[in-house]
Amino acid sequence: MNLIVLQPLEVDADHRVVLTDDRARHIRKVLKAEPGKILRVGLLNGALGMGTVESVDRDAVVICCEFESDVPPKPRIDLVLAMPRPKVLKRLWAQFAALGVGRIVLLRADKVERFYFDSHVLEPEFYTKRLIEGLQQAKCTHLPDVLIRPLFKPFVEDELDDLFPNHWKLLADPSGERRVSGFQPLKRERVVLAIGPEGGWTPYELDMLQEHGFEMFNMGGRILRTDTACVGLISMVSHLIC
Amino acid sequence: MNLIVLQPLEVDADHRVVLTDDRARHIRKVLKAEPGKILRVGLLNGALGMGTVESVDRDAVVICCEFESDVPPKPRIDLVLAMPRPKVLKRLWAQFAALGVGRIVLLRADKVERFYFDSHVLEPEFYTKRLIEGLQQAKCTHLPDVLIRPLFKPFVEDELDDLFPNHWKLLADPSGERRVSGFQPLKRERVVLAIGPEGGWTPYELDMLQEHGFEMFNMGGRILRTDTACVGLISMVSHLIC
Repeated sequence: MNLIVLQPLEVDADHRVVLTDDRARHIRKVLKAEPGKILRVGLLNGALGMGTVESVDRDAVVICCEFESDVPPKPRIDLVLAMPRPKVLKRLWAQFAALGVGRIVLLRADKVERFYFDSHVLEPEFYTKRLIEGLQQAKCTHLPDVLIRPLFKPFVEDELDDLFPNHWKLLADPSGERRVSGFQPLKRERVVLAIGPEGGWTPYELDMLQEHGFEMFNMGGRILRTDTACVGLISMVSHLIC
Repeated sequence: MNLIVLQPLEVDADHRVVLTDDRARHIRKVLKAEPGKILRVGLLNGALGMGTVESVDRDAVVICCEFESDVPPKPRIDLVLAMPRPKVLKRLWAQFAALGVGRIVLLRADKVERFYFDSHVLEPEFYTKRLIEGLQQAKCTHLPDVLIRPLFKPFVEDELDDLFPNHWKLLADPSGERRVSGFQPLKRERVVLAIGPEGGWTPYELDMLQEHGFEMFNMGGRILRTDTACVGLISMVSHLIC
């Protein structure tokens, strides 16, 4: 935990917060903090800052916070991800938040099993906890927005253009003729990256995504596991736009 | 398993192979192959090819192989990695092979616990199995070379220059002033990428690596878990040189 993430409502008018949960245990047992210790803190979706530990006891840790005036910029990458196997998604949540993703759309595709959408890994209480773990690891405060869309066609036809109006749209698929290195890095633009299921998008899905402005590229001849591919692609693309 | 990897000695003079292990079970149960089915095959550290299933029974699968004349090029990225926690390395082996790493040096650093080097994840039988799993996933045949070096200084002083004589040497560290996007992509060169421990390299270690030709860059302000950082960095760098 490189950052203690606080909910805005937890902080009182004197910038004081009383922690009694996992964060308190972490501060006491892992960081072994004593009164006077300075910790990095951040408001969920808000500013970073420093917190001075005022007291530590078995039940609670009290911290007095001072926040920076500027809120860090939102991550500039969004994701349209064919719903992975729940076991894989479970491992990915924290990594998405740590790598910096603004919005994650989990989409049905032809080669995605319908029952994946019944998994508990799609429950907000489940994934929010893991997303916050990722923020605490990476020292970030922006919680990714999560949209779950169990129908491909209505999402692409009715929502996609409005959600990503001015985005550079990139689509990773083995049938893409360009490598991502063939794209010129762009400054300060938002990107939305579409990543298909293990078996790939169908030709119909590829056509629809391209009709809605996605440019295809390939990652080379290697077939990567979804989790490896997601982390690799987000890293590559974040360096294309920085 | 997108490729059945074969040891050269398993293939007889008629290009026939008899499998009786996990691969046979996978071909029978997951691929549900029957005689006549064509499978992708590859010789470890050698050529890719196609195999025709000749017979499938409870104990063995017989495949007749035809290999391409060219051996695919070796991955152009090598890695000098401060030994991660064994639990993390366990998850990384297959991903290294899948992403395409030529050589992996696991190095002691000041912030690496000495007992990590006693772990069973450094035993060749353990990691070779996982590396081959990665090759079978990614359809590659080049098994990464693994070197284990529990002493930092002698490795850097006596071995590093000889192991990586003409490599572009890159070092990921939060104190680097450049972003990786600040580097011009280079064609056809080999790269060696150094990745530090969770707590970072010490100033002494950074100095020594730079004296031996490493150029520093940072990955942005985010602090990533070692496994996320490794996958992200290898992906980024592989697209800098392709």
